[in-house]
Amino acid sequence: MYQTQRGVNSMQHLAQRLERLGTETAFSVAQAAASWKAKGNLVYPFHLGDINIPTAPHIVEAMSKAIADGHTGYCPGPGIPQLREALAEDIGSRRGISLSPDNVVVMTGGKPVITKFLQAVMNPGQEVLYPNPGFPIYESQIEYLGGTAVPYRYLPTSQGFSIDLDQVRASITPNTAAIIYNDLQNPISAESTAAEREAIAQIAQEHDLWVLSDEAYFETRYEGVSSSIASLPGMAERTVILYTFSKKFAMTGSRLGCAVAPLEIAKVLSTLNTNDESCTTHYVQWAGIEALRGTQEPVQQMLDILRERRDAACELVNAIPGMHVAVPQSTFYLFPDVTAAMEKMGYTAVGDFASDALYKTGVSFCTREHFGRRQPGEERQYIRLAYSGIDVADIRDGLGRLRDWIATA
Amino acid sequence: MYQTQRGVNSMQHLAQRLERLGTETAFSVAQAAASWKAKGNLVYPFHLGDINIPTAPHIVEAMSKAIADGHTGYCPGPGIPQLREALAEDIGSRRGISLSPDNVVVMTGGKPVITKFLQAVMNPGQEVLYPNPGFPIYESQIEYLGGTAVPYRYLPTSQGFSIDLDQVRASITPNTAAIIYNDLQNPISAESTAAEREAIAQIAQEHDLWVLSDEAYFETRYEGVSSSIASLPGMAERTVILYTFSKKFAMTGSRLGCAVAPLEIAKVLSTLNTNDESCTTHYVQWAGIEALRGTQEPVQQMLDILRERRDAACELVNAIPGMHVAVPQSTFYLFPDVTAAMEKMGYTAVGDFASDALYKTGVSFCTREHFGRRQPGEERQYIRLAYSGIDVADIRDGLGRLRDWIATA
Repeated sequence: MYQTQRGVNSMQHLAQRLERLGTETAFSVAQAAASWKAKGNLVYPFHLGDINIPTAPHIVEAMSKAIADGHTGYCPGPGIPQLREALAEDIGSRRGISLSPDNVVVMTGGKPVITKFLQAVMNPGQEVLYPNPGFPIYESQIEYLGGTAVPYRYLPTSQGFSIDLDQVRASITPNTAAIIYNDLQNPISAESTAAEREAIAQIAQEHDLWVLSDEAYFETRYEGVSSSIASLPGMAERTVILYTFSKKFAMTGSRLGCAVAPLEIAKVLSTLNTNDESCTTHYVQWAGIEALRGTQEPVQQMLDILRERRDAACELVNAIPGMHVAVPQSTFYLFPDVTAAMEKMGYTAVGDFASDALYKTGVSFCTREHFGRRQPGEERQYIRLAYSGIDVADIRDGLGRLRDWIATA
Repeated sequence: MYQTQRGVNSMQHLAQRLERLGTETAFSVAQAAASWKAKGNLVYPFHLGDINIPTAPHIVEAMSKAIADGHTGYCPGPGIPQLREALAEDIGSRRGISLSPDNVVVMTGGKPVITKFLQAVMNPGQEVLYPNPGFPIYESQIEYLGGTAVPYRYLPTSQGFSIDLDQVRASITPNTAAIIYNDLQNPISAESTAAEREAIAQIAQEHDLWVLSDEAYFETRYEGVSSSIASLPGMAERTVILYTFSKKFAMTGSRLGCAVAPLEIAKVLSTLNTNDESCTTHYVQWAGIEALRGTQEPVQQMLDILRERRDAACELVNAIPGMHVAVPQSTFYLFPDVTAAMEKMGYTAVGDFASDALYKTGVSFCTREHFGRRQPGEERQYIRLAYSGIDVADIRDGLGRLRDWIATA
């Protein structure tokens, strides 16, 4: 094992851009949980955005067949034509927009779309609006690439949360390049009303902004139908959609997703793929075609499982003194307000509350702090409970313990 | 299908960094070949750096087992511990260096190591030396990330090529951050003598440079044993090794590789993975463990096949009037000097020579022009013949046709 030996502090010699690089701090929660479990303790994993349901067999079989058919060599940077076509059809038809395969650029998951979108549309020194709390890589990549990350917040409502549109409008300057919009939101499970979505679209057009529409959870929903901002008039030509197979098809470890983009941007994204990783794993792309075109029964079965977990988790959370959450229709996260519970127990830092919860009850979860820098004026305290990686029985056990710990404090 | 509608020229609105982004222009050769073949013509594919040999069954079986065992979810950004351990052992033992799994960061192929290395060590405005002719992504990524790409050349010798060390020394300034070194070189198949490798190491230490050692072809060799610059005294702590499963194990489409780096840089690369794509495809990593630890018989079989192709190709190339190549001991490329053949036929542009060769003989190949910008003072003309994607019979047929075309011109 060797270290750098260049100077007293080798980081002197590393690139300055690294000082602006953030990460997903949620991994430290996973590490703490794993280490607590390794000591022989029960752990209830509500911190995972991963899915404890296997990828459906017909998808795996399609991959095996692709390997047997010899699809083990390089393939085009923007993806194999057959997958791009299947994605254009599926994504377009569900959103009511007409897509060509040329609008689709296959990626190693949804995440690469974030950095590649920003590389394509944002100059250093420009500003990008992003949801906060939100997926932490938005903030990290905007700043890493030399931009200024300008947060916008959500306000609690009786139904859940709504975007503070006044803040969005007030945050735009002539230097704003883009807005990142994550309807069906991680971590807070907010979903825009049609009016809110239209307001965001209107703002984007009025100020000539690019839009990254992160639609990772577009089809992870329990009632109703999702809508895309790209479907609104005048929006497709300024919107890049982030699409992923991860959540819908329980394929998180397969690393398969795509960007849907106007042609000029799609060409740029394709060239970035050629530079960065040549292509996405070839045979996994054939599995993706089967996921899109084969039976959709496993998708429905997974949603049924997730709905049951959601119902159990919501009921239990709302029975805990000082905790409250509205029942979300989409994603697999709850973002309960825990302010009163923390006050009752004398906590001022939500990180301490989470850490003690793990050691007292085994319940492991992320907090608001893992989803972007806390903004001035934030008074309420929130945690994020993911129910994608934990069965109903463990949801009941774990949240029961959490309730007992808080109730008897 | 939609395009951007922002302004008359939508590229006005895209990021300026894109003006510095290069690509692999060799893909246009593949397109021309495919289109010529689609018209019913015979094509002899010497342009491919891909391998027409399937991934070995035991590797595929290990992947299927990993999927059956439930390894379909996310895994750590730097790779699963078991693969990092296997890589540290294998790479370390073959190079005589002691590696910890913490020095190994798994990547989606070897290529991501190029951009991530540069992101980690090079500031905008700094210079990086790179081989030219060489893998075109070096030049592209140095400039894309705001650096200055400073080429160094190879001089023809009776054995093949040697690095122009005087040019390397003369090109270094106080602003030079790193040197990219590709021993067992693509496209020219050069291999350093021990003295040349030591000279590069000495230059790197004297001028305090980081080194990217692209070792993609380290084990694609027909005689002798490869050496790594990282094994030389004082070098491991300033060297990042690019390792890939692509060539050795016929796994180009699997996208599996790694960086071997000093700890501080390994941590940075790991954080970049978390930002860029979360992790490398999970079950493919289990296949990688089997590739490293399982039977090595298929590796030897592939080398035997490639050796036979090399021998056939070299013999035939040297029988073509006005073409000459030394017999390389490694890689699966030939880089013949075609100056006299072109002169005989009246060509001044090697691209025209290649294009006519395709349409007159069906032989498809890249030229020197696909491997970095031509440098001032370059007088000889070269093409690259890859024999990884073409069988011996087709090598004989194709190069026979090329010979007849040139001989009778």
